[in-house]
Amino acid sequence: MAKKIIVMIPARLGSKRIPKKNIRFMCGKPLIQYPIELCLKSRLCSEVWVNTEDEDLGRAVGHFGAKFHKRPQELASDTATNRDFTYEFLQKHECDYVVMVNPTSPLLKEETYQSFFQYLEENEFDTIMSVVTEREETFYQDKPLNFSLKEKINSQLLEPTQKIVWALTAWKRDNFMKMQEAGENPVFGGNLGRFEIPKDEACDLDTEADWRIAEGILMARERETEVEYLQL
Amino acid sequence: MAKKIIVMIPARLGSKRIPKKNIRFMCGKPLIQYPIELCLKSRLCSEVWVNTEDEDLGRAVGHFGAKFHKRPQELASDTATNRDFTYEFLQKHECDYVVMVNPTSPLLKEETYQSFFQYLEENEFDTIMSVVTEREETFYQDKPLNFSLKEKINSQLLEPTQKIVWALTAWKRDNFMKMQEAGENPVFGGNLGRFEIPKDEACDLDTEADWRIAEGILMARERETEVEYLQL
Repeated sequence: MAKKIIVMIPARLGSKRIPKKNIRFMCGKPLIQYPIELCLKSRLCSEVWVNTEDEDLGRAVGHFGAKFHKRPQELASDTATNRDFTYEFLQKHECDYVVMVNPTSPLLKEETYQSFFQYLEENEFDTIMSVVTEREETFYQDKPLNFSLKEKINSQLLEPTQKIVWALTAWKRDNFMKMQEAGENPVFGGNLGRFEIPKDEACDLDTEADWRIAEGILMARERETEVEYLQL
Repeated sequence: MAKKIIVMIPARLGSKRIPKKNIRFMCGKPLIQYPIELCLKSRLCSEVWVNTEDEDLGRAVGHFGAKFHKRPQELASDTATNRDFTYEFLQKHECDYVVMVNPTSPLLKEETYQSFFQYLEENEFDTIMSVVTEREETFYQDKPLNFSLKEKINSQLLEPTQKIVWALTAWKRDNFMKMQEAGENPVFGGNLGRFEIPKDEACDLDTEADWRIAEGILMARERETEVEYLQL
């Protein structure tokens, strides 16, 4: 039987370092519109919910085709955790899986989003995190992690690291609820899958510099520049 | 006594994945012009050398103010290593330190370059690598490296990883020569310092996608866009 999958897009209005980033325009569209369009276009989930404390934002996302889940005010503070607001959301919505699509990932492409759903459908994970894989000489706790100081090898041969990027996350509702109610952390809970996304589809949006980078990348994708060379 | 520091900019013409990238225009300037301008503007080193096998490129960089170090043809292949061409370069040029400035880092800012030289002047390292520090939940060899599955903590509290980015590298000539001649790997040799550079100044230029990202970031830096919001 097909899994019932719903999407949750978390979107506080009270972001701190970049104020109101979810409704700020990036390349002509408010940030929140990117994940909504991505999810609706792909038609892979039965419902697309925006999880926000703000009534006005809740109404506005309706125009883009998303549903409004009103987050209780106490879960909208800086100290409220992903764990808590996802639990509150899952209490109200029946499903087999919830996919959290982060609005701070406007660079995510449709084919990557679709592959994520396919990965979810074809496997039996309790949790899936999106990761970016890197093969770079890496230090950890002041020591070489995946390379030796004694030799320099081609970076393509290095053992990779994978960092969680929070662009796409999937949780099996059952497992999440059970772990949360048992006082365990469900965020990385149960049988954990990792889904690789291309590094140019992951971004942070913590600072103004991050914002400009993401906007620059979006613009660069659309531009078809002619390739020119210095005449030698 | 002040250290004698010279700059070496490695610039093969025969790059594979992005053909002739060193002379390809990025935002109106050939890539090779970025590191040359950066180094000359800062006046922190006594000489700026471009290390290339190509005579025509060697002549061309003269117009931008750099000197031409002709790399022997056998060190210009895909299999020739950094270690080998740097050794050959250091055999020909007296100095206390060589700083390798990579042309694939057009995003490097002047203040970062200057801080690197200051770090070099004020410390006694044999080797300095530029690194990008990240605080992200990271997996290594399929296991959590710097976090626990049992709890989700604020990423600012995570133990960082540092990856080498090869934007700026410094070697003490003495040490490099000695280690190479003793059959040891000098690339990470001796007393090793790490110099942090901001993540938006590091980039890869391995693929067309990388190229467009870097170009987008450069453009985004110059643009002053008005901040606009969705009306709620």
